[in-house]
Amino acid sequence: MAVYKAPVRDMQFVLNEVFLADNLWQSMPDTEEVSGDVVEAILTEGAKIAENLLLPLNQSGDEVGCQFENGVVTTPAGFKEAYQQLADGGWVGLGGNPEFGGQGMPKMLTVLFEEMLYAANTAFTLYPILSAGFSLALNSHASQEIKQKYLPKMYSGQWAGTMCLTEPHAGSDLGIIRTKAIPNADGAYEITGTKIFITGGEHDLTENILHLVLAKLPDSPAGSKGISLFLVPKFFVNDDDSLGERNQVSCGSIEHKMGIKGSATCVVNFDGAIGWLVGEINQGLACMFTMMNYERLSIGIQGLGLGEIAYQSAASYAKERLQGRAVDGPKNPDKYADNLLVHPDVRRMLLSVRAYNEAGRAFAVYVGMQLDIAKFHPNETKREYAADLVALLTPIVKSFFTDKGLEMCIMSQQVLGGHGYVKEWGLEQFVRDARIAQIYEGTNGIQAMDLVGRKVFRNQGQYVELFLSEMKVLLSEIADDSSLQCFYSGLKSTIEICEKTTQQLIASAKKDPNYLGAVAVDYLNLLGLTSYAYMWTKMAKVALQQVDQDDTGFYQNKLIVGEFFIQRLLPQVYALQISIDSGSSAIMKMGDEAF
Amino acid sequence: MAVYKAPVRDMQFVLNEVFLADNLWQSMPDTEEVSGDVVEAILTEGAKIAENLLLPLNQSGDEVGCQFENGVVTTPAGFKEAYQQLADGGWVGLGGNPEFGGQGMPKMLTVLFEEMLYAANTAFTLYPILSAGFSLALNSHASQEIKQKYLPKMYSGQWAGTMCLTEPHAGSDLGIIRTKAIPNADGAYEITGTKIFITGGEHDLTENILHLVLAKLPDSPAGSKGISLFLVPKFFVNDDDSLGERNQVSCGSIEHKMGIKGSATCVVNFDGAIGWLVGEINQGLACMFTMMNYERLSIGIQGLGLGEIAYQSAASYAKERLQGRAVDGPKNPDKYADNLLVHPDVRRMLLSVRAYNEAGRAFAVYVGMQLDIAKFHPNETKREYAADLVALLTPIVKSFFTDKGLEMCIMSQQVLGGHGYVKEWGLEQFVRDARIAQIYEGTNGIQAMDLVGRKVFRNQGQYVELFLSEMKVLLSEIADDSSLQCFYSGLKSTIEICEKTTQQLIASAKKDPNYLGAVAVDYLNLLGLTSYAYMWTKMAKVALQQVDQDDTGFYQNKLIVGEFFIQRLLPQVYALQISIDSGSSAIMKMGDEAF
Repeated sequence: MAVYKAPVRDMQFVLNEVFLADNLWQSMPDTEEVSGDVVEAILTEGAKIAENLLLPLNQSGDEVGCQFENGVVTTPAGFKEAYQQLADGGWVGLGGNPEFGGQGMPKMLTVLFEEMLYAANTAFTLYPILSAGFSLALNSHASQEIKQKYLPKMYSGQWAGTMCLTEPHAGSDLGIIRTKAIPNADGAYEITGTKIFITGGEHDLTENILHLVLAKLPDSPAGSKGISLFLVPKFFVNDDDSLGERNQVSCGSIEHKMGIKGSATCVVNFDGAIGWLVGEINQGLACMFTMMNYERLSIGIQGLGLGEIAYQSAASYAKERLQGRAVDGPKNPDKYADNLLVHPDVRRMLLSVRAYNEAGRAFAVYVGMQLDIAKFHPNETKREYAADLVALLTPIVKSFFTDKGLEMCIMSQQVLGGHGYVKEWGLEQFVRDARIAQIYEGTNGIQAMDLVGRKVFRNQGQYVELFLSEMKVLLSEIADDSSLQCFYSGLKSTIEICEKTTQQLIASAKKDPNYLGAVAVDYLNLLGLTSYAYMWTKMAKVALQQVDQDDTGFYQNKLIVGEFFIQRLLPQVYALQISIDSGSSAIMKMGDEAF
Repeated sequence: MAVYKAPVRDMQFVLNEVFLADNLWQSMPDTEEVSGDVVEAILTEGAKIAENLLLPLNQSGDEVGCQFENGVVTTPAGFKEAYQQLADGGWVGLGGNPEFGGQGMPKMLTVLFEEMLYAANTAFTLYPILSAGFSLALNSHASQEIKQKYLPKMYSGQWAGTMCLTEPHAGSDLGIIRTKAIPNADGAYEITGTKIFITGGEHDLTENILHLVLAKLPDSPAGSKGISLFLVPKFFVNDDDSLGERNQVSCGSIEHKMGIKGSATCVVNFDGAIGWLVGEINQGLACMFTMMNYERLSIGIQGLGLGEIAYQSAASYAKERLQGRAVDGPKNPDKYADNLLVHPDVRRMLLSVRAYNEAGRAFAVYVGMQLDIAKFHPNETKREYAADLVALLTPIVKSFFTDKGLEMCIMSQQVLGGHGYVKEWGLEQFVRDARIAQIYEGTNGIQAMDLVGRKVFRNQGQYVELFLSEMKVLLSEIADDSSLQCFYSGLKSTIEICEKTTQQLIASAKKDPNYLGAVAVDYLNLLGLTSYAYMWTKMAKVALQQVDQDDTGFYQNKLIVGEFFIQRLLPQVYALQISIDSGSSAIMKMGDEAF
């Protein structure tokens, strides 16, 4: 069976020791009340929710999935009660705006709570996560009236939110959507169209569901510049906050999917449904991106959470399963065999998963920290700097975390041999659940295009330079420390590769319009690996300072796993560099008919 | 929906043009009757079976799966009739010994037929493939009496075969099996024990099922040297070939799995079942390896076949799906968008899949050719040379083909975006079906250990040297051809890396017992990529000779896909070299309790 204990000690290490969260929070008025006690409470209570409330519903939720009948979606047994408990505890609005009932917790902390939820039950977690992203968009772009009317019930978890973008003919290419919004005399709009792949588009967890819908006004310009955003509730809300009549929104069917079966993926039909504009006319895509970027970070964390439960389950199996003998003599001579950990290749797999997971966790907190600075810091220069980093890193987090998430679930599954392939042990579900994260919220190819186009080429590599400069500061801090030599030289080489490759990318893209697309994914992976090398070097520096005073092995193990990352995983950057060097020539040559 | 047309033209290219199969067959008495007409008939009729008989049962077979009730296993609707047709056509015994009713077709050809079957319906294909491997083991090791009694019905497909190795506590470590064989006075044995994960252990496709079972005699030595092999039929066979009473063999349950749901994975209980020795006492593992090696090659081809159907389905989708515009101007200005092929990253994915698939197909035929030479060639030196190559390459085929098979299914799935994740389109099933191939018939980690231990270190790199020498001959043939410069330099560099890394591996393994295990998988992948570079260089050489006389683009496209492989995929060898260089230190440091 799957094994999961929220890695609270590791989380505290990253938050308190690596990124000194407390110092940052004290320096910003909006977060100065976030004390060590609050952090402690959130991590330990969050762990209980994940382990005791959500994990027990994960496998059963996968087995029965969501059911659809006559427009009604029924979530798996136990989901509704669990959602209620989550809402009652105030967890749905954990990062929400306090003005409307949110808890106002910093992102640095909420990313860790999200990781726990995804690890324990990804399908379930998508419901509250969508509500959180929805609320963020509403808080940023809606009128004060709309905010007052809807946000408190969103933060309390009484109502849930969705994002309605994709249509049958329009997925990655939102410019061609056909859903129409016709203005009414009273300032509202009549929305008509069909949206597909809508997570939580219909369900039985909350009394109302609010949709954020992309649609086009009759006279709006073609393409993505003519898209507006609308709030469309399932049930109208009366002035006294009670629910009124049903809007013309209905669920046409749900998808039968590879995984996340407890999450309802809906066809949602809007048949002249009444909606209200959020943000400005024709600025809908930009407004929706507030939610999208939130969800992209969150979906990255889905990959991380699943990688963590997969690791724990595989490590637990490896410790218990007896099979074969150590090559250098039996380690368990009283039994018929040694455990799987005597086999170097089993260790290679487990260490790989762990090295990616731990770097990912640190990186999630790092990006959360930049989001907090961008939002809360009194110094404008610091806010802008952080916002630039967030822009650069969001596609990396979404894509690299989810690619590694799937790979790490597969690698963990491999540790169990045949038992990894049968349903009983749970690993195969993690693989199926992790797979979607590379696809939704913008496929990972789209993320890579966003990175090379908008986040690198458009500013001539300026954001990358910021990020690499930070790393160079760290390098200079550890240059003389022989114990960190492996980290120093690994990070140094990869920074050089990034600099060279970025310059070349900018130069080549000016000459060849297909260059960026041809190298986008390789370039994203190069920056992903570099980011992880940065995180490991940061962690190693802190661990080295503590290692002599520690008899638990905690800090020593950080150094070992980090060294493994640098020696065995980071070298992929050399292959990526050569692959990127070759550009687009072989990619664009072949005629369409030959595919 | 999934799309599949057997790639007959590509198969003919590899067989006839790259490896000049006809010349080889004419040089060996046992194969000299295999004419061009026979090859043509087998490929075109085989394609019909795959496309028209098996593919239509693939998705429905996954949906309903095998059912188990009271010891009886029912395969999905249509499987029984399809199996009957396959058997009636003589396909089950295609590669079998003609002395007992087999068709005697060379492996070079049967690998291609197998690829078609796996592509169309992997779960179904496992039944006849196991029978083929079973028959090979029986033909090699059983007494003449047993062969005469059982082989004709196996080749005709009237009966089916299994391999019974794994037990609940013993998977990769067969030395610790507990199944007992007690000799009877009449020369037969009473077999008692429980075997798990037995593919086709029980089903309704054939009137009888024959099990090859590993068991230990009471006085046999401990470990893998004390294992013997037994033939245990489900129903006894009377002297007139009619079926007699049921043996004490029963199916206890079937597994609920991630994929290959139409394939029955059984717990098989032997309760004093009567069996007959195959091969010598205590030589069971060696005898079983005749079947295992056959199945390892075949399971490699499972990865290849699934990669091919995934490619075709994704390419078909990419051509039809309109989304976005080409960066260098609309390609389809009359429609609302261009097709997916205008996006370089979509091409990158499709070309990657195709480059691995086509190299894999050539490599499968190459290994099939070595198997044919090892079996049929009149010259003993050539037989031995080929057998050495087969020994070296079998773990590479099994592991590299199946790793790439999964990756390529995942990459193809990605091309479909959200549609790749829903069941309707079929891609997600290919991913689930491909996943098992990395696990069964010896996990890919076990394959890598076999490679570095028995196939490289034990003979001090002699087999690797043979293989690389062949490549160097090819290099010298193309050294002066500027059109093949990319292939020449790519292959040359990777050969040098292999030579250096192999020397270092042998030297380091003498000092550090954990070294081989620590680098095994990376080393296998290095040789896998090198083998594919060799195949692409061979294909490119042939293609270049034909390209000027060809107006179909066939040969030109071979050169393009090959160039893509060398430029974009082969550079992984540089990363592997560095990773291997780092050895075992970071892997063995951490205490068990810290995992």
